Amino acid sequence: MKTKIKFSSVYEIEKRKIDKRLKSLLKDRQPLSLYKPGSYILESSGKRIRPLLVLFSVKAVGGKFSDSYSAAVAVELLHNFTLVHDDIMDNADKRRGLATLHKKYDLSTAILVGDSLLSVAYESLLKDLKLNSKGVVAAFTKGLVEVCEGQSLDKEFEMKKNVAISDYKLMIRKKTASMIEMCCKIGGYIGNGSKKEIDALSKFGRNIGIAFQIQDDLLDAVADETKFGKLVGGDLKEGKRTYLFLKALEKAKGNDKKLLKLVIKNKGIRKNEISKYQDIYRKLGVIDDAKKEIKNYTDRALRSLIVLKKMENRELFHSFADYLISRNK
Amino acid sequence: MKTKIKFSSVYEIEKRKIDKRLKSLLKDRQPLSLYKPGSYILESSGKRIRPLLVLFSVKAVGGKFSDSYSAAVAVELLHNFTLVHDDIMDNADKRRGLATLHKKYDLSTAILVGDSLLSVAYESLLKDLKLNSKGVVAAFTKGLVEVCEGQSLDKEFEMKKNVAISDYKLMIRKKTASMIEMCCKIGGYIGNGSKKEIDALSKFGRNIGIAFQIQDDLLDAVADETKFGKLVGGDLKEGKRTYLFLKALEKAKGNDKKLLKLVIKNKGIRKNEISKYQDIYRKLGVIDDAKKEIKNYTDRALRSLIVLKKMENRELFHSFADYLISRNK
Repeated sequence: MKTKIKFSSVYEIEKRKIDKRLKSLLKDRQPLSLYKPGSYILESSGKRIRPLLVLFSVKAVGGKFSDSYSAAVAVELLHNFTLVHDDIMDNADKRRGLATLHKKYDLSTAILVGDSLLSVAYESLLKDLKLNSKGVVAAFTKGLVEVCEGQSLDKEFEMKKNVAISDYKLMIRKKTASMIEMCCKIGGYIGNGSKKEIDALSKFGRNIGIAFQIQDDLLDAVADETKFGKLVGGDLKEGKRTYLFLKALEKAKGNDKKLLKLVIKNKGIRKNEISKYQDIYRKLGVIDDAKKEIKNYTDRALRSLIVLKKMENRELFHSFADYLISRNK
Repeated sequence: MKTKIKFSSVYEIEKRKIDKRLKSLLKDRQPLSLYKPGSYILESSGKRIRPLLVLFSVKAVGGKFSDSYSAAVAVELLHNFTLVHDDIMDNADKRRGLATLHKKYDLSTAILVGDSLLSVAYESLLKDLKLNSKGVVAAFTKGLVEVCEGQSLDKEFEMKKNVAISDYKLMIRKKTASMIEMCCKIGGYIGNGSKKEIDALSKFGRNIGIAFQIQDDLLDAVADETKFGKLVGGDLKEGKRTYLFLKALEKAKGNDKKLLKLVIKNKGIRKNEISKYQDIYRKLGVIDDAKKEIKNYTDRALRSLIVLKKMENRELFHSFADYLISRNK
């Protein structure tokens, strides 16, 4: 219990520091037509999981938080760049309860502000780099390359009739896990970890990233709506091929299979049909399947940390993993 | 005359090498949904001015072409990223005679392929970096930051009633010249030039970049249509605030001024009105004004090269400057 209290206080304190930096980052920059909408996005508070992972990874290999804030800010900027552009591609109206950038402003602004967030991300990444700067920039760039590939795979799914669970896993590895992996790797480099430590952190990031995405799918399907903050069943409504959907399709027979195939054919369902599909999920046991997958990937992630010397730092990651997979939004 | 022949043969040989690399760069990459449209853009042959400037700058400080192809490819990728996104923002149908990406595919593809070109740009930039890697990445990133700011200023002009020539110059410095400056600077770093040499190359790039953009404006207004390859007067038709337009507005009186103000008010003119405005430009002497500005900036660019030791390398830039400002498309 002691660790958990320590974790959540570290998390809160550091999250606040990151929020503060993000809030002031673009304040004095010109032109306002570019940086004001950029600030709008950065001020809407996310969970800041990625920058926190940078910090924890730096610490895990013996480095200091104070060396890593610019890099931590950089990964959050990169993340927000993907959100702004993804929201255009998904034609999303809202993000974190606020109007998406292309709805609040316009398409051109959203494209350009996304680009600009990425440009400032690199700028911030380079700002305080001392050690292993080539490794850091290469890891960051690999994350960027893969997140584009992952988004492309995700868009392909919308056009595809058949998507295998292995396709899905490749997609989330690229779209979600590679960015989480990148955060841990960058932290390892900045903290001047050994190759072994950096590999361990990368592996942790990759696996916890996959667990994180399946958890996202799970929450979307069956979360407590009062805590979730958006429509539960949204993925079903939009006909998204999530882990639960693909697993259900694999297991279903007869009428259930027909109903699931209809979701693909019609590219989604009506809101009032969501509970019918949640029942199918429950009947087929895919909620438990998802939980098992999440546990498997989380265990694999945590096992890789065994090479980290300080038990104290491992515990921070254990609590972080707990936090990620027990969250309700 | 000897230098000119040498220049054009070097230019052609190196341009072909760059073209070849760009053609094969994305060939074996997955997913195809991302990299095939990326290849489509890279295969449409541009002038490849930016990568050539990287090569020439490397050489100018005593480095080798062979160390710089990946960086040269990187700057062309960055340039193409801006073209793909700018074409969306400008709602352009054609680019270099081919359908723009968002017309040939769709909006989402064009946004994502643009992002992906930028990601591969950084990847390529890092690939063969040995010397001054932090300087190279920082210069590249500064170019990216400024091109976003420049594009934002350009979009602002569309909404603004009054644009001063100084506003215009800031805009083209950011949108066009900063990328040219970046190419020269990167080349200086890769060739391991001295600080003095790198500063000189940057200054050359910045000034030749401004000359290049005013030359673009000039060509658009009065080029020989049989050689220009697109509509002469397109900027007038779209109501763009170019150097010639702003200079004309500054000098015009009476009915000419009224007519020029109508272009702003109506956000452009009809195709059959173009010749009327070309006559105003001629009458007010803004074509000569533009030529004078181009000459001033070119002279300033070339003067900064005095610190380069080898006369031979200076001559390459002189020929390049000649080529840029005497082009007809």
